[in-house]
Amino acid sequence: MPCGYHGKILHVNLTTGKLELEEPDETFYRKYMGGSAMAAYYLLKQTPPGADPLGPENTLSLMTGVVTGAPFSGQSRVTAVAKSPVTGLVGDSQAGGFWPAELKAAGFDGIVIYGKSGRPVYLWLHDGEAELRDAAHLWGHFTADVEDVIREELSDRRIQVLQCGPAAEKGVRFGALINNASRANGRTGMGTVMASKNLKAVAVRGHNRPELADPEAVKALAKWGVDHFEGSNVYGLGLLGTAGVVSSQDKNGGLPTRNWASGTFEGAEAISGQRMADTILKERDTCFGCLIRCKRVVEVTEGPFPVDPRYGGPEYETISTMGSYCGLSDLVAIARANQLCNMYGMDTISCGATIAWAMDCFERGLLTLEDTGGIELRFGNAGALVQMVERIGKREGFGRVLGEGSARAAETLGVGRDLVVAVKNHELPAHMPQVKRSLALIYAVNPFGADHMSHEHDPSYKWYPERMAELGLLDPQPLQVLNAEKVRYALYTQYLCSCLDSVSLCQFVFGPAWQLYGPSQLVEAVRAVTGWNASLWELMKVGERRLNLLRAFNAREGSGAEVDTVPPKLLIPLQGGKSDGVAVAAEEVEAAKALYYRMAGWDENGRPTRAKLEELALGWVADELAL
Amino acid sequence: MPCGYHGKILHVNLTTGKLELEEPDETFYRKYMGGSAMAAYYLLKQTPPGADPLGPENTLSLMTGVVTGAPFSGQSRVTAVAKSPVTGLVGDSQAGGFWPAELKAAGFDGIVIYGKSGRPVYLWLHDGEAELRDAAHLWGHFTADVEDVIREELSDRRIQVLQCGPAAEKGVRFGALINNASRANGRTGMGTVMASKNLKAVAVRGHNRPELADPEAVKALAKWGVDHFEGSNVYGLGLLGTAGVVSSQDKNGGLPTRNWASGTFEGAEAISGQRMADTILKERDTCFGCLIRCKRVVEVTEGPFPVDPRYGGPEYETISTMGSYCGLSDLVAIARANQLCNMYGMDTISCGATIAWAMDCFERGLLTLEDTGGIELRFGNAGALVQMVERIGKREGFGRVLGEGSARAAETLGVGRDLVVAVKNHELPAHMPQVKRSLALIYAVNPFGADHMSHEHDPSYKWYPERMAELGLLDPQPLQVLNAEKVRYALYTQYLCSCLDSVSLCQFVFGPAWQLYGPSQLVEAVRAVTGWNASLWELMKVGERRLNLLRAFNAREGSGAEVDTVPPKLLIPLQGGKSDGVAVAAEEVEAAKALYYRMAGWDENGRPTRAKLEELALGWVADELAL
Repeated sequence: MPCGYHGKILHVNLTTGKLELEEPDETFYRKYMGGSAMAAYYLLKQTPPGADPLGPENTLSLMTGVVTGAPFSGQSRVTAVAKSPVTGLVGDSQAGGFWPAELKAAGFDGIVIYGKSGRPVYLWLHDGEAELRDAAHLWGHFTADVEDVIREELSDRRIQVLQCGPAAEKGVRFGALINNASRANGRTGMGTVMASKNLKAVAVRGHNRPELADPEAVKALAKWGVDHFEGSNVYGLGLLGTAGVVSSQDKNGGLPTRNWASGTFEGAEAISGQRMADTILKERDTCFGCLIRCKRVVEVTEGPFPVDPRYGGPEYETISTMGSYCGLSDLVAIARANQLCNMYGMDTISCGATIAWAMDCFERGLLTLEDTGGIELRFGNAGALVQMVERIGKREGFGRVLGEGSARAAETLGVGRDLVVAVKNHELPAHMPQVKRSLALIYAVNPFGADHMSHEHDPSYKWYPERMAELGLLDPQPLQVLNAEKVRYALYTQYLCSCLDSVSLCQFVFGPAWQLYGPSQLVEAVRAVTGWNASLWELMKVGERRLNLLRAFNAREGSGAEVDTVPPKLLIPLQGGKSDGVAVAAEEVEAAKALYYRMAGWDENGRPTRAKLEELALGWVADELAL
Repeated sequence: MPCGYHGKILHVNLTTGKLELEEPDETFYRKYMGGSAMAAYYLLKQTPPGADPLGPENTLSLMTGVVTGAPFSGQSRVTAVAKSPVTGLVGDSQAGGFWPAELKAAGFDGIVIYGKSGRPVYLWLHDGEAELRDAAHLWGHFTADVEDVIREELSDRRIQVLQCGPAAEKGVRFGALINNASRANGRTGMGTVMASKNLKAVAVRGHNRPELADPEAVKALAKWGVDHFEGSNVYGLGLLGTAGVVSSQDKNGGLPTRNWASGTFEGAEAISGQRMADTILKERDTCFGCLIRCKRVVEVTEGPFPVDPRYGGPEYETISTMGSYCGLSDLVAIARANQLCNMYGMDTISCGATIAWAMDCFERGLLTLEDTGGIELRFGNAGALVQMVERIGKREGFGRVLGEGSARAAETLGVGRDLVVAVKNHELPAHMPQVKRSLALIYAVNPFGADHMSHEHDPSYKWYPERMAELGLLDPQPLQVLNAEKVRYALYTQYLCSCLDSVSLCQFVFGPAWQLYGPSQLVEAVRAVTGWNASLWELMKVGERRLNLLRAFNAREGSGAEVDTVPPKLLIPLQGGKSDGVAVAAEEVEAAKALYYRMAGWDENGRPTRAKLEELALGWVADELAL
C-alpha cells in the first residue's frame, strides 16, 4: 500500500476533559474505512459489557470515512454509534449535510467520546485544534438557536454544528443528533447518548480540503455524475425529494397507514412529493459537494402550523410516520411536526410511529383523554399530532410516556402491546415487508432494530440487473417471496449498504436502488481518493466486517435470536388497496432467519462464530466474546 | 446484462455417437465463467454417485473460459474435470498451450464427454462442425506421432490435438492429457478417464477469433502487459522457466529431496534453471497470445538419454520429482524422463514421486531387485529412473505396480505405507509445507488431493502487499506459522486461484505470486472481453462456487474430513540445510483444518452446508446432496 491514506481520530474524555489525538496506521484505515465499522471498533474496544447506555461508560463515536470531503456527490456523511438507549443494544445512525465534510476540513476523520462532563460543554474543532467550551448557555435551546449562538460567539458564520436537542437533554429515548438544524442522525437515540454526557454540540470549521491521491480520477468521477444525472433514477429524487415515493408506495399497497392496518392511504396524494412541490416547497437543498439536491426546504407563514424553512422539510419517512401512520393527510401539519422534531432533536420515525401506536390504542379505547392529558389522539387529528410531538419534545405529561417509544409505553401503560410495530424497541420505518418481503427478514435481524437503509429492498432486482450482477445477484425474483435466493439477495445487499455506511457514502448516490453510481464506481471513488487499489471484494468484506462488529456487540450483551422478531401486527392481513389481505407469514420469516444466520456465518442463535470473525480479520472480537 | 457473452458447449455421447450443441444463456456463463466451475457443474449434474471413474458413467469435461482466445497473455487455458481414477473423488487439472484458443476459434467453449465408444475414436472440431472419427490407427502411438497422423489425414498442419497417451490406454492411473506433445493436464488421471472411454484425441481447428466486447480495453490490457513485463516478477519466469525456482527452493530448505527426507539437495545447482539454460535449452516456447514464454524446449542429441525438442522441456515440478525427490542431479536424465511422460501421456509429478517412493523403499530394503524386475532403484540412479518411467508408461513388470501410484503400490506390495507422500492417493508436488506452512492445510483439504496451484504460497505476502490488500489481506505473517490469519490467507487466495481456474487464466500471469497482472486487471480482463461490468467480489464468489462444487462432489461420494490428511512423513523432522529439524505439527494442521472448514461455511466433516450452497446460488447442489 505505497500511496495510502492517513488521518486523525480525536479521543475526547469528558470526565477528565482530556483530548487526545490518534493517528492510526494505514492498515487500520483500510480495514475499517471509517463510519460505522470504525465507530463499532471503538465501541467494542472501549465500552464494557452491560454498560448503561446513558451512563458515562458508553462510548459515542462520530465518524466520517476515507472519502469524506472529496468533491463528488454523496460523500458528506457521518455515522454515530454508541450503545442505544432505544434498543439497549448497539445503536447506529447516519446523516448527511455539511458537517461531515467540515469536520474533515478541520483535520479530523472522527471523534470518540467517553465519560461524562460535570457541566454542559461543547466541542470546538478548527483547523487541527480541539477544545471543550462551556455550554451552559446553550442547554435547553432549540437547535437553530444554538447554531446561531455558537457561530456568533466564535465569530464565524460558516461553522457547522452537530448537536443534541432539548428533547435528548430531558431524556427522550429517541433523541437525534441534528446538524444544520435540518439533518438528523435520527435513529437509535444517539442524541440522547450525547446529552447524557453533558455534551451539547460539536462545532467544526476547517480550511483544509482532503488530499486526493488521484485528483484527475476524482474529477472524472464527478463529471460522470454530472453527465449521467438527468438520465438516472436519482434525478427524480432531486426533483421531488424522498417524498416522491409516497405515491408509488401507496399504489403498490406499501404505504403504512393507521399504524400499519393498511398499505393504502386515501390521503396519499395530499401528502405526496408532487403536492409538496406545488404548495409549501420553498427550495431544494443539498449536502456538501452533492448535485442531487434531494433535501426539501418548506415554508408556511400563515395558519395554525407555521413552518420555518431553517428547519428544512419532511422526508418520505417523516411524511409517512407523521402522516399515513397517523391517518393524517395534512401536509402542513406534517411539516410542522417535522420542524418540531428538528428543533427539539428527535427521530421523526420513532416519534411519529409512537404517536400512531397511541392513536391506534386511543381509537380502540385502550387509551383515554385522561391518559393523554386531554389530547384527542384520533387518526387524522392534525392538531393532536402537532401538540403531541411538542409534548414529547418537552417530555411533558403524556409526552413523558411516549418519549420512551411505543414498546416501553405499552409496557408502562399495560396496553396495546400487540399493536406495537417495532423490533428491538425500534419503530418500523415506512417500508412494508408485506409487499417487499426481504424487509421482514432484515427488520428482524438488523443489529440495531428495524431499519430501511440496511439492505436493498426487493424491487431493485429489476431496476438495475447489471448492477445486481456485479454483486453476484443474477437470478430475478418475484416480490412477495422470501425464499433462499431472496435471503441471499438481502445478505449481499446488506453487505453493500453496510460498506457504504462505513466508507461513509450516501445510499441515494451509491446504493443499488436509487443510485447514480454503481458498485464499480464505489470502488473507483475509494481508489481515487485514497490511492489504494481497492476492490469490490475488499469493500464488501468491509461491509461484512461492520455487520459482524455490530452483531458481536449485541452478542457480548448476551443478546441473540430471541430479539430478532417480527412485530405481531405484521402477521395480520392488511386491509384495502393493492395489498388487501396480505400478511407476513411467521414461519417464512423464521425459516429465512435460520438460513440467514448460517449464510452469515453465525450460530443458530445469530451470534458470530470465531471462524467468521477470524475470516474477517476480527480475531480480537472473538477473544472479546470469549468464543 | 445488456452486452453479454454467448457461446457453445458440445455434448458428446460416445456410447450412442450423438453430438449435441448447447447454447447456455448468459446467466449461466456469468455464474460459472467456464473452466473448472463449469466442468464441475456438468460432472455433478451428469455423473451419478458411486460411479466407476473408468466406467462409461463418468463424465469428462474439457472447458475453456469466457476470456479464452482473447489477445492478451495467460488466457489460453483448458481445464479437465471428471471423477478421478487416482483419488476416487473429483479430479481436476489445468493446462495451457494453443489447443484452448484453437477450440474457441473453432466455435466451442467446451466439451462434455459421456459414455464409452465401442471402438477407438477421435473428435474432430472445426469451425462449428463436430464429428467422431475412427482412431484405431492412432491407438498405442506416442503423442507427437498421433498429432502428425491427424494433421496429415485432415490436411491441416495447424490443427491442435489434445490426447491421452499409450500409458492411459493401458490403464496407468495417472494418465495425462497432452496437447502440443508438451503441455499436460497432468494431474488426477484425466487422460486415463479419456482413454477409458475409447476416445483417443480431440483435434481442433478454427478461424473465428472470439468477439471482444471492448477491443480497445483488451488492447490496452495487452499493452500494459508488454510495458510492464520487464519490471515484473514473471520476467524471470520467462528467462529461466519454472526451473528458475530450483535454486531458491533449495536455499530456503524447500526442495523435496530423497522422498521428502530433506529440503535441501546437494545437486540443486546441477538441475537448476540456469544450468538448463546453459546446457540443454534449445529455445523458449509459449502459449497462444502470451508474451511470457515460460515453456522450455530442450534438446539432447548424444549420450544415453536423447531428448527430442518436440516434447518440450521439464518444468520445476518435473525437475524436482524426477530429480531431487529421487536424489538425482542428472538434468539430461530428467529431461529424458520428462519426454517419456509426454510421449506416453503421464503426470510427471505422480510418476516421479512414485518412483522416489519406490527408491526410498528399495534403499531401506523393503523392495528388492526381484520386486523391481532387476532395476536398481537407488536414489541418484539415472538409468533406473529412465528405465522405470518407460516401464510405467508401458505398464510392464514393476511398472504395472508403480503405475497405480505410490499409495496403491504400497497397499499392493504391503510395504512402505508410511513412506507414501500423498493426500487422497495424489502425490505431493514439490512445495514443502515445512517451510511454507499454509501448504500443509491446503494439501490436506484440497478436494482433488495435494495440489500446489490451489492457493497462494506463504511468501507472496511480502512480494505484493498492495495486491494482497486488494484481496482484503492486510496483515503480514511469518512463514513457519499456521495460525488463523494464515488460514484466512489460504482460503482467500484459494478463492482467487479457484476463480482463475474457472475464468481459465494462467496463474503465472494473473495469480498473486508470479503475476504480471493484479486482481483489478483480472476484473478488467473479464470486463473487456465479455462486456459484463464484472467485479472482484463476483469473481471471488465464482472461485468460491467452484471450490464448493468440487467439495460437494466428494461429499456426495460420502467423503469428508477423514481423507483431509497430511502424510505421516511430513511429521518427521527434515534433515540438513535451512529446514534441518523442521517438521509439520499434526495438531497445528488439525486445528487449522477445523477453522478452515468453518471459515469456508462447511460442517465439521468438511462438507458444504445448505446455507453456504444457497449463498452461492447453488441450491440445486444442496438438493443433490439431500441436505
